[in-house]
Amino acid sequence: MGSSSAQLTELEFPDEDVTSKDVRQRRFLVRREGREIPGLLWTPAGAAGTRPLVLIGHGAGGSKREQHIVGLARRLVRHHSFAAAAIDGPVHGDRRSDGAVDPALILAEFAQLWARDPAMVDEMVADWKSTLDALSQLEEIGSGPVGWWGLSMGTILGVPIVAAERRIEVAVLGLMGTGGPTDEFRKRIVQDARRVSCPVLFLLQWDDEIMRRSDVLDLFGEIASTDKRLHAHPGMHVEVPPEELEASERFFCDHLRR
Amino acid sequence: MGSSSAQLTELEFPDEDVTSKDVRQRRFLVRREGREIPGLLWTPAGAAGTRPLVLIGHGAGGSKREQHIVGLARRLVRHHSFAAAAIDGPVHGDRRSDGAVDPALILAEFAQLWARDPAMVDEMVADWKSTLDALSQLEEIGSGPVGWWGLSMGTILGVPIVAAERRIEVAVLGLMGTGGPTDEFRKRIVQDARRVSCPVLFLLQWDDEIMRRSDVLDLFGEIASTDKRLHAHPGMHVEVPPEELEASERFFCDHLRR
Repeated sequence: MGSSSAQLTELEFPDEDVTSKDVRQRRFLVRREGREIPGLLWTPAGAAGTRPLVLIGHGAGGSKREQHIVGLARRLVRHHSFAAAAIDGPVHGDRRSDGAVDPALILAEFAQLWARDPAMVDEMVADWKSTLDALSQLEEIGSGPVGWWGLSMGTILGVPIVAAERRIEVAVLGLMGTGGPTDEFRKRIVQDARRVSCPVLFLLQWDDEIMRRSDVLDLFGEIASTDKRLHAHPGMHVEVPPEELEASERFFCDHLRR
Repeated sequence: MGSSSAQLTELEFPDEDVTSKDVRQRRFLVRREGREIPGLLWTPAGAAGTRPLVLIGHGAGGSKREQHIVGLARRLVRHHSFAAAAIDGPVHGDRRSDGAVDPALILAEFAQLWARDPAMVDEMVADWKSTLDALSQLEEIGSGPVGWWGLSMGTILGVPIVAAERRIEVAVLGLMGTGGPTDEFRKRIVQDARRVSCPVLFLLQWDDEIMRRSDVLDLFGEIASTDKRLHAHPGMHVEVPPEELEASERFFCDHLRR
């Protein structure tokens, strides 16, 4: 399946290609059936040969250029010689023709889309599959092991992706529960969680003002993986401490390094 | 206070003194006001000078010689040149004149004592204080920073000890909740948790058949420390994975190494 859909996708590096401290950052576009998927790719400068790839899903209101996304990606490249890639979520980043970056506006639009269009999740799963197909064709990535990192919207979309994509061998998820705007969505995320079987690190913020604690605990409980752990910290939704970026890094390293 | 009570305690190394793979293990006795406190001390072979000390409280039914207690202690000595000490809990190990080692018998006796005698907790807090006083007099330990590690009974007793002992700068706790055999005890552990202010790593077993999950989450919530984290894993009470011994080691290292 991976290789046949890869033939339908096109990968382009249209412009940005910068290297700083031995990390090369390139903007890419993947084209699939009329959709254009904007992303960023991080690789070691001068990389050659197959390596682990970590896919990073950003949070609602942000983009593939969020500071902690870029920070995690650069860390994985610099410390472990991995590759990392992020694509913009629906109504986010370069997917917007109006160039808007106001988090409140984008968050509100995402919330509307989420409530209105159940196919949004499937489209994003397909976008990530196409992105993975395309990036795997690169000589400096190849078909090495793949990880997923995504919190909040990165788990709303990440649970379905990790459930659907058998190439993903390890995942960091969290800041999301069994709640959601519609019954259909709530049923779907639980069903998908029950199909996740890879090692999982799941994060919870104890004082999360957006996601109800009991719902987040429930979603962790629903994940089918026997190899899973929950890390919880005091603080609000966006206050995940640096300790968990370190834990993420260690977790990927333990599971993706051959 | 430390030094005045130290004058009333006596430390003796009556017999066992073995060194293996550069870890020296000595049995000790501390005497305080008619009580005899049996313990084990682990130090690097040939240790000289002040070093961090980790106090280890074992679980109900076990003893200071439990495999994971000795394993953690040896790991802290070998990898970090720390010292570690464990003492037997009430009705456990060398505190028994009958030499019984049957976990079920000892567990049942501890449960009875716990329900009957609220002073048991205070006696153990005093025993640990005396032990710390005594061990701090050793040239190879001195008044270096102190950590606490104790799960289950090691948290039943550990929360009061960490609350009462300002020399303890960091603690690993868990596998215990806000439940307990009496109202008095349940009130006490919550009060003590609200006095714990050092960095805490708190462990929960998702399928714990002894401690109710919601009670364990509540006790984590009651701990006053702003720097705290909960790590939860699937599995029953005694199935804490090796990953958390590694996390404990890293946690002590981050907080006790000067």
